[in-house]
Amino acid sequence: MPELRKDPIAGRWVIISTERARRPSDFAAGAAAPGACAFCPGGEASTPDELLAVRPYGGDANGPGWSVRVVPNKFPALRVEGELEPSGEGLYDRTTGVGAHEVIIETPSHDAAMWDLAPRAVADVLGAYRARIADLARDPRLAYAMVFKNHGEGAGASLVHPHSQLIATPIVPIMVEEELAGAVQHFRMKKRCIWCDIVHQERRGRERLILEAGPFVALAPFAPRLPFETWILPTDHRSSFEETTGPELEVLAGLLQEVLRRMARVLHTPPYNYMLHSAPFRSTSRERFHWHIEIIPKLTRVAGFEWGTGFFINATPPEEAARYLRGEAPESPVS
Amino acid sequence: MPELRKDPIAGRWVIISTERARRPSDFAAGAAAPGACAFCPGGEASTPDELLAVRPYGGDANGPGWSVRVVPNKFPALRVEGELEPSGEGLYDRTTGVGAHEVIIETPSHDAAMWDLAPRAVADVLGAYRARIADLARDPRLAYAMVFKNHGEGAGASLVHPHSQLIATPIVPIMVEEELAGAVQHFRMKKRCIWCDIVHQERRGRERLILEAGPFVALAPFAPRLPFETWILPTDHRSSFEETTGPELEVLAGLLQEVLRRMARVLHTPPYNYMLHSAPFRSTSRERFHWHIEIIPKLTRVAGFEWGTGFFINATPPEEAARYLRGEAPESPVS
Repeated sequence: MPELRKDPIAGRWVIISTERARRPSDFAAGAAAPGACAFCPGGEASTPDELLAVRPYGGDANGPGWSVRVVPNKFPALRVEGELEPSGEGLYDRTTGVGAHEVIIETPSHDAAMWDLAPRAVADVLGAYRARIADLARDPRLAYAMVFKNHGEGAGASLVHPHSQLIATPIVPIMVEEELAGAVQHFRMKKRCIWCDIVHQERRGRERLILEAGPFVALAPFAPRLPFETWILPTDHRSSFEETTGPELEVLAGLLQEVLRRMARVLHTPPYNYMLHSAPFRSTSRERFHWHIEIIPKLTRVAGFEWGTGFFINATPPEEAARYLRGEAPESPVS
Repeated sequence: MPELRKDPIAGRWVIISTERARRPSDFAAGAAAPGACAFCPGGEASTPDELLAVRPYGGDANGPGWSVRVVPNKFPALRVEGELEPSGEGLYDRTTGVGAHEVIIETPSHDAAMWDLAPRAVADVLGAYRARIADLARDPRLAYAMVFKNHGEGAGASLVHPHSQLIATPIVPIMVEEELAGAVQHFRMKKRCIWCDIVHQERRGRERLILEAGPFVALAPFAPRLPFETWILPTDHRSSFEETTGPELEVLAGLLQEVLRRMARVLHTPPYNYMLHSAPFRSTSRERFHWHIEIIPKLTRVAGFEWGTGFFINATPPEEAARYLRGEAPESPVS
């Protein structure tokens, strides 16, 4: 059973993932799994039973004919069975590693880029995120669900076939807690949502604005941790991603694709991660949250200074990154 | 001039390092600087003037004959000249990027491993850390100095020649603030230092203990972010690394070398980082801090889940890692 452990000094939790236990010899670089891809059509029997699938022309569960498929992770970081059992060990706190770890297979095509899919297909992927978050939010043991995508080996992906993941945790993650704390503090002072204020300021100033599409905006944040970090968020106040409507998902899909397409052009198809931050399931201040997607191309390596301080050194000012992604910079291949 | 910017939501600061400004085409992987190594003897003229050097047999500043040499970073993340000038931009806060960025060249030998140097030579490196931190602590503009080492490309090193770095910041880094806040809270409840309590518990329990040497201990923390994360700390309460005596530095050097040597054997010479956490320069609660060195071999990649949540998934329980580093595990080549 995996375990959640808390660092007693920094208050940070880690998952000690015994299902994936690693001996020193397992860390050899690039040890890819051989054989057929379990995420390709025909490989359905190699994954755990599906939780959800989009089948435009019908077809049976766990057979081919799907366009999006959600399955439990075969090697989950957290286990969905069991109860939360907190325990102590002297100074230390731990609890059983209860949670969910799911894989969203985004397309039957083994090596399609997300920006090459039909916007309707990407909207279905986002719809799968929405449905899975909404379903897990009903589990009283769980406090949060984070959807994320690792694309490319440099971004931590171990499989090529396009997929995202969802991990639901029984504890609100520290980064979401910190964001929410900042938002609550801002609201106390200003009676306004901090993300709404940011959207307002960026749409007025425009130098960090990348794209607008219907009720969504893509921008370079004022203090990005990494070069070309980009946020996508609704322009109106929306706490939970689950509230997004079907037509909105289609607009969002197109915007996400366009941002990824431009990053690929400007930065030569870099590995990247994106993370969907939605409101915690049952926090009393959840209405202060404003959902957003953070996209980070992996262009540099995190080194000792960042690990030791939490300070990031970013050599690309966001105004510059936004200019490139808008297609306005001289060497920009976007325009 | 570089700039410090604060994320208004998470409260995290980043350095926008204009001295190293990067265009998209600069992110090509592995673009190593050609030509002779500026850190080798004979290359002294290629670095800024030295701030400190150990010359066992004498010799002139900025000439050969040194065994350890500290120079300003030629491409500093922060600039040592100028005043802190905070300014606003609507919602946002920024300040001029005042600070120090120094390089500690650890040995004249271009490709020596730290564990192969004479312990006396490593004690001189640690002595250089101590001297530089003590010197920078006198600068009223600065709040903190972080010494760190990036070893190997996978750990963010861009040069092979053994070196560490020091970055002094005008703001106490968020991770040090969080550690200090945790320690202050613990002290309020228990009237004891949290790191002292951890050392006490680990020396009693022993399953996460790796090595002891005089007044220092190496242990695997209860909730490590990364596989084989290891901490070295003084067993007695010491806030500031600057207080370490000469004879203590020699013992510490031997312990650090032994931990790195064992990691290299067990994990096949992985890239690694280490970070020296000492007390902030002028915090009122600085006496609550307990200095320590965090060592993290780079065996896995940080992916979307970690970026989005601050939660880490670690597949190697620290009890297991400690067993390997003690030489007790079956496949362990240490014993």
